[in-house]
Amino acid sequence: MKHFALIAALIAAGPAFAYEPLVEKQSFTLTDFTTDGGATIPEMTLGYETYGTLNEAKDNAILIPHYFSGNSHAAGKYAESDAAPGYWDTIIGSGKAIDTDKYFVVAVDSPVNLGANDPNVITTGPASVNPATGKPWGMDFPILTIGDFVETQKGLMDQLGIPKWHAVMGASMGGLQSYEWAARHPDLLERVIPVIASGWADADLIAWLDVWASPIKLDANWNGGDYYEGEAPNAGLADALKVVTLHANSAEWTNGTFGRNWAAEGADPGKAWANDYAVVDALNKAGAARASLSDANHFLYLVRACQQFVAGHPEDGIYKGLLNIDVPVMLIHTDEDLVFPGDAVRETAGIIKSDGTPVEIVELQGTRGHLDGVLNIAQASDRLKAFLDAE
Amino acid sequence: MKHFALIAALIAAGPAFAYEPLVEKQSFTLTDFTTDGGATIPEMTLGYETYGTLNEAKDNAILIPHYFSGNSHAAGKYAESDAAPGYWDTIIGSGKAIDTDKYFVVAVDSPVNLGANDPNVITTGPASVNPATGKPWGMDFPILTIGDFVETQKGLMDQLGIPKWHAVMGASMGGLQSYEWAARHPDLLERVIPVIASGWADADLIAWLDVWASPIKLDANWNGGDYYEGEAPNAGLADALKVVTLHANSAEWTNGTFGRNWAAEGADPGKAWANDYAVVDALNKAGAARASLSDANHFLYLVRACQQFVAGHPEDGIYKGLLNIDVPVMLIHTDEDLVFPGDAVRETAGIIKSDGTPVEIVELQGTRGHLDGVLNIAQASDRLKAFLDAE
Repeated sequence: MKHFALIAALIAAGPAFAYEPLVEKQSFTLTDFTTDGGATIPEMTLGYETYGTLNEAKDNAILIPHYFSGNSHAAGKYAESDAAPGYWDTIIGSGKAIDTDKYFVVAVDSPVNLGANDPNVITTGPASVNPATGKPWGMDFPILTIGDFVETQKGLMDQLGIPKWHAVMGASMGGLQSYEWAARHPDLLERVIPVIASGWADADLIAWLDVWASPIKLDANWNGGDYYEGEAPNAGLADALKVVTLHANSAEWTNGTFGRNWAAEGADPGKAWANDYAVVDALNKAGAARASLSDANHFLYLVRACQQFVAGHPEDGIYKGLLNIDVPVMLIHTDEDLVFPGDAVRETAGIIKSDGTPVEIVELQGTRGHLDGVLNIAQASDRLKAFLDAE
Repeated sequence: MKHFALIAALIAAGPAFAYEPLVEKQSFTLTDFTTDGGATIPEMTLGYETYGTLNEAKDNAILIPHYFSGNSHAAGKYAESDAAPGYWDTIIGSGKAIDTDKYFVVAVDSPVNLGANDPNVITTGPASVNPATGKPWGMDFPILTIGDFVETQKGLMDQLGIPKWHAVMGASMGGLQSYEWAARHPDLLERVIPVIASGWADADLIAWLDVWASPIKLDANWNGGDYYEGEAPNAGLADALKVVTLHANSAEWTNGTFGRNWAAEGADPGKAWANDYAVVDALNKAGAARASLSDANHFLYLVRACQQFVAGHPEDGIYKGLLNIDVPVMLIHTDEDLVFPGDAVRETAGIIKSDGTPVEIVELQGTRGHLDGVLNIAQASDRLKAFLDAE
């Protein structure tokens, strides 16, 4: 395996070898889960995957919560024939930054996971059956917080008998969960690595998240969230996912990839309304493709969870929760990020550092904006490895 | 009047004195207007306003085309009781940068103007009656280009007997029209001042414009553009205008103005779906208010016109039209602009300058992003005045 890792390191720009062995989705259930808002969810079943082996002391476990439209498939393949491995496979595996010869990685599905219709996602949310009625919860499902997501992970931690995470690391919404872990349970982790995320949702993020969500409510099929016996609002959901895709990318990507090309040769958008530009066509297709495995209400619940986010959920202000963080922090981000701009990440770092907590910042380079935190995370490999392996 | 101007200059941060005398909307009609796309519009009637007096030589006229959601009300008031003067009143008037003691300013309504239902707008577009059918054109109205907008202004120029503009100056979509004038009719103007705009719509702008427009098509009332005898798609139009408002502002504005405040005291967005954040509530209200005077199809036509924009509309590439510009250029913009980012404006300047055309760049400071080109234009007053008054 070392030999493979060496080769992988030498050809870092090329495709890395996927995490081995094949990965299996597992699940866990929490009963009578109480939310931050005081509601009770009788049964909360969520999926997870693990990579590597939990040691006897159970002190080598690293938790990976996922991003907004992601799931627990962070590394490896389910079958050799899979087109691609999990989203962070470049940093998870034997000899990689998160070395599975050494660490036991636990990647979890969130509640209200977007991919409610994806067979590889196990989640509980508005599309799930409410045991009290025998019908899908719809918008009667309790509004959740990022803190609730963390508490479900705490439930899994307890079931696995893990006393303390060696680290918690996640991208974007997974970064919010990482901050939340460190602010809410400072004694239950050794270090934290929020990636492409800041320590609270500011007004600008709240507003953009609302722009993401708005198309769903415009779709007549949404019907106040009650659509499980009829047509799903997939046109609205597709438009919502189109906005997410564009916002999570960058002008370098749109301009470099599509330019002013038309979607089809000879089909000038100036000549007919049915014609369009290549960039618009690609975004429409990406949105529609992602919508088919997703649930519109789940999208709305994720948006509301993110909008509410202030690390540690203090009663007032944004500082108290961040000041609660006292484990070493590594922030990985890019200044080309439109969703979590560099200024917001630096301001977060400033608050955490202000009482002496060590904060290391890693800047990624790339042309994909926010998405570079997923696609180009391997750039951080050396510093990430050193941060994880530090005594 | 000089005394007033002096006082206005001394209290530049406060409200300026509005252009005097009271302003009247006028209109002009072009018959059998032929579009860039080869269609014929039997009757094109558009509004305009003038400030100052056309001199005998007719060589003191300055043309002001407007921005996406704007109209020809660039300065002054219609009645003393008006709450606010036209959008660029701080630079248009006696003793101001565009000195109406010296210049004759012509501000025009565009075809397919967004404010089709605004009594102060006179325009022709899909909401207008098609003489051939006696019914509104709807989506049968010909797709227009920014070049078509310019040709309508050329028609007014001819009717007024103006042989050459002393200058053409406009913000945002008005900036596109300014570039287009200089690239398309280099002999018909003395200088050009595109504000918060670049010389072509790149893929990123094309994609964001599509995000602006998409909510309209999601609204079931849109009905393929055929809604003039039923309910207008005002929910979709309001969402579209919400996206425009957010995109044209900046994080400094959202964060500084609203923070994480709730829309209503005691109404925690974490507790109920009916509750929301102040920033979202304000954007929703702004969108809805603007929708009531606007037309959804006109919005779509404006988007398509902007998406098609390449200065001078050359057959291939983006350079040829910009290289056609050989009058002095002043570009006014801000680096905080999300719609026309600084890089795009600088690239435009680089192309125009490459063959020796003089280009002066003025950077605005502010907290409103793209909108600073409207709200904070007075910062450019001294340099604008010098540029306009140069022999």
